[in-house]
Amino acid sequence: MTVRIGLIGAGVMGSDHAQILSSAVSGVELVAVSDPDGARAAKIVEMCPEARAVTAPIDLIRDSRVDAVLVASPDETHGELVLACLDAEKPVLCEKPLAASVDGCLKIIARERALDRRLVSVGYMRRFDPGYVEMKRRLRAGDMGAALIMHCIHRNVAASPSATAPMLITNSAVHEIDAARFVLDAEIERITIVTPRRTTLSGIQDPQIMLLAMDNGVVVDAEIFINAQYGYDVRAELVCEHGTITLTPPHDLTTARSASQAFAFPSDWRPRFASAYRAELQAWTKAINSGATVGASAWDGYVATAVAAAGVQSLASGQPAKVALESRPALYD
Amino acid sequence: MTVRIGLIGAGVMGSDHAQILSSAVSGVELVAVSDPDGARAAKIVEMCPEARAVTAPIDLIRDSRVDAVLVASPDETHGELVLACLDAEKPVLCEKPLAASVDGCLKIIARERALDRRLVSVGYMRRFDPGYVEMKRRLRAGDMGAALIMHCIHRNVAASPSATAPMLITNSAVHEIDAARFVLDAEIERITIVTPRRTTLSGIQDPQIMLLAMDNGVVVDAEIFINAQYGYDVRAELVCEHGTITLTPPHDLTTARSASQAFAFPSDWRPRFASAYRAELQAWTKAINSGATVGASAWDGYVATAVAAAGVQSLASGQPAKVALESRPALYD
Amino acid sequence: MTVRIGLIGAGVMGSDHAQILSSAVSGVELVAVSDPDGARAAKIVEMCPEARAVTAPIDLIRDSRVDAVLVASPDETHGELVLACLDAEKPVLCEKPLAASVDGCLKIIARERALDRRLVSVGYMRRFDPGYVEMKRRLRAGDMGAALIMHCIHRNVAASPSATAPMLITNSAVHEIDAARFVLDAEIERITIVTPRRTTLSGIQDPQIMLLAMDNGVVVDAEIFINAQYGYDVRAELVCEHGTITLTPPHDLTTARSASQAFAFPSDWRPRFASAYRAELQAWTKAINSGATVGASAWDGYVATAVAAAGVQSLASGQPAKVALESRPALYD
Amino acid sequence: MTVRIGLIGAGVMGSDHAQILSSAVSGVELVAVSDPDGARAAKIVEMCPEARAVTAPIDLIRDSRVDAVLVASPDETHGELVLACLDAEKPVLCEKPLAASVDGCLKIIARERALDRRLVSVGYMRRFDPGYVEMKRRLRAGDMGAALIMHCIHRNVAASPSATAPMLITNSAVHEIDAARFVLDAEIERITIVTPRRTTLSGIQDPQIMLLAMDNGVVVDAEIFINAQYGYDVRAELVCEHGTITLTPPHDLTTARSASQAFAFPSDWRPRFASAYRAELQAWTKAINSGATVGASAWDGYVATAVAAAGVQSLASGQPAKVALESRPALYD
Repeated sequence: MTVRIGLIGAGVMGSDHAQILSSAVSGVELVAVSDPDGARAAKIVEMCPEARAVTAPIDLIRDSRVDAVLVASPDETHGELVLACLDAEKPVLCEKPLAASVDGCLKIIARERALDRRLVSVGYMRRFDPGYVEMKRRLRAGDMGAALIMHCIHRNVAASPSATAPMLITNSAVHEIDAARFVLDAEIERITIVTPRRTTLSGIQDPQIMLLAMDNGVVVDAEIFINAQYGYDVRAELVCEHGTITLTPPHDLTTARSASQAFAFPSDWRPRFASAYRAELQAWTKAINSGATVGASAWDGYVATAVAAAGVQSLASGQPAKVALESRPALYD
Repeated sequence: MTVRIGLIGAGVMGSDHAQILSSAVSGVELVAVSDPDGARAAKIVEMCPEARAVTAPIDLIRDSRVDAVLVASPDETHGELVLACLDAEKPVLCEKPLAASVDGCLKIIARERALDRRLVSVGYMRRFDPGYVEMKRRLRAGDMGAALIMHCIHRNVAASPSATAPMLITNSAVHEIDAARFVLDAEIERITIVTPRRTTLSGIQDPQIMLLAMDNGVVVDAEIFINAQYGYDVRAELVCEHGTITLTPPHDLTTARSASQAFAFPSDWRPRFASAYRAELQAWTKAINSGATVGASAWDGYVATAVAAAGVQSLASGQPAKVALESRPALYD
Repeated sequence: MTVRIGLIGAGVMGSDHAQILSSAVSGVELVAVSDPDGARAAKIVEMCPEARAVTAPIDLIRDSRVDAVLVASPDETHGELVLACLDAEKPVLCEKPLAASVDGCLKIIARERALDRRLVSVGYMRRFDPGYVEMKRRLRAGDMGAALIMHCIHRNVAASPSATAPMLITNSAVHEIDAARFVLDAEIERITIVTPRRTTLSGIQDPQIMLLAMDNGVVVDAEIFINAQYGYDVRAELVCEHGTITLTPPHDLTTARSASQAFAFPSDWRPRFASAYRAELQAWTKAINSGATVGASAWDGYVATAVAAAGVQSLASGQPAKVALESRPALYD
Repeated sequence: MTVRIGLIGAGVMGSDHAQILSSAVSGVELVAVSDPDGARAAKIVEMCPEARAVTAPIDLIRDSRVDAVLVASPDETHGELVLACLDAEKPVLCEKPLAASVDGCLKIIARERALDRRLVSVGYMRRFDPGYVEMKRRLRAGDMGAALIMHCIHRNVAASPSATAPMLITNSAVHEIDAARFVLDAEIERITIVTPRRTTLSGIQDPQIMLLAMDNGVVVDAEIFINAQYGYDVRAELVCEHGTITLTPPHDLTTARSASQAFAFPSDWRPRFASAYRAELQAWTKAINSGATVGASAWDGYVATAVAAAGVQSLASGQPAKVALESRPALYD
């Protein structure tokens, strides 16, 4: 049965999702879109003729013709919108973060527990990236032995002028936080932010190195560099007892020209994770039909926000920060 | 509007297409399937509950609830089924070859010309592979200068025991024939088959080297090796005046283990061209809705079959064979 | 003029050096060898007919027919032998470490200062590896901007049963310590050892992650893993303001076989650094003729030993350790 | 014992050899140099103080203080100089070609046979390149099965204005001719030159594709492109029954910058084959001391010249050309 989606937020991520839903996902229809900027909403309607523009997000959420909601609005609105979806008992896929604060995340978990039912997915799309999926599968296959270290790289071309040092953690490193938990099936106990020499091309502490101590002893180190200039580049290497597993930077071609052989980097995350986004939306659609959820849960969303918050403390103090998590409700086992 | 597809042929390719259509393509529904083997058809129905099994292909083609037809039946049936689709004036995507004989292809072209309308697409899926698409785009961008040579590799793990030497050309090299025309926007004038030392792992002339002389002077050389053992591996390098453009063998990971760093090859064409098949089916679906056709046309299907036939002559004679094509009707401009 | 070399130590490294000197270096002759194990010394004499076996190292050092001395004896003997070379005012190339203790290193520096002349080179061969040399040259070229982070990997196949956790630092990481100083032209202020989950294939804390804070703010992180199983693998990536510079694991071939495309790792450091050793011995020979020294100086040898000693403290305490160096004498500017 | 070398020719190749001999080869001394251009000879003498300039090459050859001769003079002088070395019964390493004509080569073979002793090596340096050597070793190891096809690429940045179409074969492809014989241990029976579309950046037939039919059935295809613009690039892939063996373009670093990750090509053959030249000169020096010869023999030099001559015929006729060789004297078994 075709799943009818309502989209909240028609900015870069929202438009991208609308475009994928309408042109590359099976069994789904975008039927409603809400954005305070009417012109942006109108663009989505133009692209998806079955979609109506709805002024108030809450009306979209409550509309009986909307089966499930995709939240791609500004970060600070996520928490309340997800709660409204839970009130309406509708599946919701919320772009990261689940909520801007740890408390906001815990409220959502409390509401899901009250419903005794999981309806929330958080858009940590790397869980659908073929590379990360295959890395996890390869680790589980067992022949590489146990994981010991995970090296990560997360580089953006150039940050917006409004970027701050904590945002390297809350906006960017948060993906490594979730990816490490996903690949390693382990929880994070301690986070340390190390501050190398800064690039002169930015006024903030950029790059940073994040160290995560997992509860099974694995150490994750991640370079976060949001003004790396040369390209959008996300890498990971998993060091195991018998060998290593490394993501390949995706590229279809190499060219030999001007004295070098090269492949190209994308300028942002969308081309890099295009197949992850498509797979995420396809899996979410399919799961809705079967009453299940996929991807990062509300619990995963909470943990990512909590670990990032501890990271911001470490950045400020220059010391390791302990990650103190609530105990995990059985609903999320 | 949802496009309703009827599938003829529920073998390896047919099942694969059904799986993609039902789980990864937007705006489409598989509504009917026909296969002489009832059990195979039943499996498709199980996967796609909206689909009915239809005994006679002709009934499927004529069914008013079928908007368009996907032909994935045995090669020798293609020609007649495509003609039946044209009789019913329905869009048809036919797996290669368009028809088993040059005459069969010409009949289809005559019928399309009589309709004065293009309804046929031929499943040369490389036209939708991100690598070939990007190679063509890069060539057209102009900064590499004119193409001069195209080197191709086409290796399969192991051929079926019934494979014959001409089948290297008609079944395998035919993809290079179409890909070269697609990338280079040029026509083939002459084909030569060179016969190297044979592998002892097969009783036939395997590998072979195919040389194509294009009408703009470009030479294409292609190694075809259907018992290459190590993996399914398709490669191409375009040599231009200012540099070269090379396909990267797709892989998500490398592993370092047992004294080497490696990436894996798939065992057949389906993983290698998974995104090409999906893109092909998505583009075809979209085109149906807008009354257009995409991919290789009936003309392209004819040329591929005609060039392969000349290649079989060259294999037999040990001499270059001229490719004598009909003149191209304006319908295919 | 041919430089006449005396070699002390005919073990793995000594034999390797003798082999290179006698078969691949210009302007040099191995004329004497000393090793407590007469059989090992005899093997060298067999390979280099111009060489005589000398029982006491001190006799070799004082022999007027020996122009310069190559020390490849056990680590704990290095300090005294280098001092004896300085007493004889002969150039000496000493395998790392310069001396087993910081005090031993300082004594050598004091003696060189008393002579007011540099005669000592320490065998940190990476300073002659084409990759590291080119990395440094590329950084100095300036177009990459300033260095910000250096990521290092140092993996051995399997450690000897007698290996201890501190030896990961004093024997292995010491190469990264010197290489970072060489590439970055900066001094180390602080070292921190992070201890990830241990491999079950060893009884010691293996792997370890070393963090170096350089005096220009650059942070160096280095994974040291001496039971990595899959191969000897040394890597480095320098992250700069405008891009990154990465060492390529050297290999002459790739093979496609058994479903994967692969290149091979060597089983130990000798093939990996064969050209570095040759270049080192060639440059040293040439420098002797011109009265100069090359490569790591006694000062560099002292710093490497001092930083490693601080690392051993950090490993024991679990805390960062400050690196307190003497002030550098003008002789080493 | 130190081998005393006389060098004839102080141009690009001669200077390069002198530089390697004097700074990177063991057991050798350049003692004489002859070049019609006194200034060029003087530069060599400056670099190698033991060397004297000698006006007449014949005096250099006859000089009793010269043990062996290195011929790096213009191509058309090679034949006579090698004959003079044979008259003097001195080992000679002659840059390719052995002689400009097939007859010139046969005269040298006749003279060696008369002496009943091999003194001639021809400078086909790829026989000492680590990649080609390893490719041959890997093939001989046997686990890849028999070789079936060898694909070769030979690209130069830009040809001199005086280059002609036949020179692609006689100057460039001649290296592939020798390398194929070396790797495959097989003889060439037929050569065909295929002429693709020409680059507009040159007035001659460039590129060309050379096909060699070996006497064991292996087919070698080689693209020769001497105005390839982007870099000096030599590649080879050996296709065997169980897999393939491919040369890796040597590079020490990759850089990520300006939206791409790249490695650099050299601008000419000297950096690409630097280790081959060093190994060749080292092996030749060592062989002289033991009375042996290494590398390509006079017979190999003759075959290369004869095959290239047949290739020039094929280029002119547009037809395959049979390679008719003398029968190989036992001296060259």
